[in-house]
Amino acid sequence: MKKVLIIGCGLLGSSLLRRIYKKNIAKKIFIYEKSKSKVARIKKLKLPGTIVKTLKEGALNSDLIIFCTPMSEYKKLILKLNNYNLPNTLITDIGSSKIETSKIIKKFLKKSLNWTQSHPIAGSEVSGPEHGRENMFVERWCILIRDKNTKKIHLNFLNKFWKKIGSKIVVMTPEKHDKIFSITSHLPHLIAYNLVKSAQDFEKKQSYGLIKYSAGGLRDFSRIAASNEIMWRDIFFNNKVNISKAIDLFVKNLNAFKKDINSKNNKSILKKLIQTKKVRSKIIKLKQDIDKPDFGRN
Amino acid sequence: MKKVLIIGCGLLGSSLLRRIYKKNIAKKIFIYEKSKSKVARIKKLKLPGTIVKTLKEGALNSDLIIFCTPMSEYKKLILKLNNYNLPNTLITDIGSSKIETSKIIKKFLKKSLNWTQSHPIAGSEVSGPEHGRENMFVERWCILIRDKNTKKIHLNFLNKFWKKIGSKIVVMTPEKHDKIFSITSHLPHLIAYNLVKSAQDFEKKQSYGLIKYSAGGLRDFSRIAASNEIMWRDIFFNNKVNISKAIDLFVKNLNAFKKDINSKNNKSILKKLIQTKKVRSKIIKLKQDIDKPDFGRN
Repeated sequence: MKKVLIIGCGLLGSSLLRRIYKKNIAKKIFIYEKSKSKVARIKKLKLPGTIVKTLKEGALNSDLIIFCTPMSEYKKLILKLNNYNLPNTLITDIGSSKIETSKIIKKFLKKSLNWTQSHPIAGSEVSGPEHGRENMFVERWCILIRDKNTKKIHLNFLNKFWKKIGSKIVVMTPEKHDKIFSITSHLPHLIAYNLVKSAQDFEKKQSYGLIKYSAGGLRDFSRIAASNEIMWRDIFFNNKVNISKAIDLFVKNLNAFKKDINSKNNKSILKKLIQTKKVRSKIIKLKQDIDKPDFGRN
Repeated sequence: MKKVLIIGCGLLGSSLLRRIYKKNIAKKIFIYEKSKSKVARIKKLKLPGTIVKTLKEGALNSDLIIFCTPMSEYKKLILKLNNYNLPNTLITDIGSSKIETSKIIKKFLKKSLNWTQSHPIAGSEVSGPEHGRENMFVERWCILIRDKNTKKIHLNFLNKFWKKIGSKIVVMTPEKHDKIFSITSHLPHLIAYNLVKSAQDFEKKQSYGLIKYSAGGLRDFSRIAASNEIMWRDIFFNNKVNISKAIDLFVKNLNAFKKDINSKNNKSILKKLIQTKKVRSKIIKLKQDIDKPDFGRN
């Protein structure tokens, strides 16, 4: 394609930028980034692409616009984009929840503009363009969202684009997407934040430090609990119905575990611990994690 | 020292074995391992030390006996050891909870035998002698347990021993130990098991697979939830009072999070997410985890 615009050049935006440049996917890459600090870092890193001062300059005549900002920024940007004539432009995003953003797009984006949502399953606990990696999305799933208004031509376009990026594609509805990721991603993050919060509360209540003994398990959760707060607030708020249900299932199971422990129910607890073990091998077989003990840390 | 006996030669026992041999800490190393499969693997791996057929052969005239079995094996082994005269032997263990084992030792170990407990903070989701590593305990904390019967001479002996192994030593009571590790290790493991169990329940209820989309968070938990089930059942049962309290604190906090999400309480949720982030930097500063994004996996 001739021209792509990346809006928001943090961890994921800059990873896309690096990859699009490396694989020569677009002749021109434009970046619209409102944070002065990020712009300075992008320049210092000598990343490819042209930083534009106005959204208009980046958007006009682009084949693809990719939103890589927190989801809470979408509405404001949509209202700006509505001022431009973009007949040959497809808009997409990489947001982690889809029902709410579908509603925002439907409600605010003018009808002549086209938006089909994407969600590449990639990320890290660190933020900012300095942490981006050219291979961030390689061999990772990318979900394309199909609802009743989605045009096949746009799905095909995104399919080709993400394949060039190196991702594996799957298409699903916003509803199915938000259900699945409430369990595989949103709940795990919430649980990690909550565990670290509980450890902090405990440490405050007792008068001794315990974080230094975190190598026995807590440290793993602390990584996820260090993820970007704006991004995760947006996800929690946007997918609150599914996340609430996931919390309820989790608490129900946790109370059953507690009962097993307190009654020393050997059979029930062993059954659970043996069952959960199988998921790890499945994940490794599906190449969703590294096949080394302890993530190869040691 | 002249002679050490390691009882149980799985992941941690074999790691101690490797280290004691490498650092020449004992002239003779004996191994008592009841699993025929493990014995075969130890032989195949050509690990150092002498595998003994009877506990007596290993125990007599040893300077140090180290229990590296699941905690549920202690009582049986204590009753055997009581048959031998071991005036110059110190017994220790590497069990992950201490109040219950203190009680077992006090109740069953004959008065002429000496036992002072250890807990090196190390491990992995994999089990067995083939996964042992000589540097498993290097730069890791090792907790020595002091209660009212503990003799200073034994603490000193263990202090020297674990320092030679490469660990950093701290002494605490069984009560303090079990409180701290209920939060930094036992609850995280339970939470990981419970999250994976909830994902399995969800997958069963829905008719589509979701484990393949686990790269967004779930995969991290699946590692911990693949830990040895016998070891973890023992820990959960042995430290049930502290773990129950930790569960209650965790659920209370989780329900507060749920309320924040459902009411879109921006201020409260951001405060929490920003606070928890600090723990990660603290853990890395304390050298309790690797200083690389995503555990250096990618």
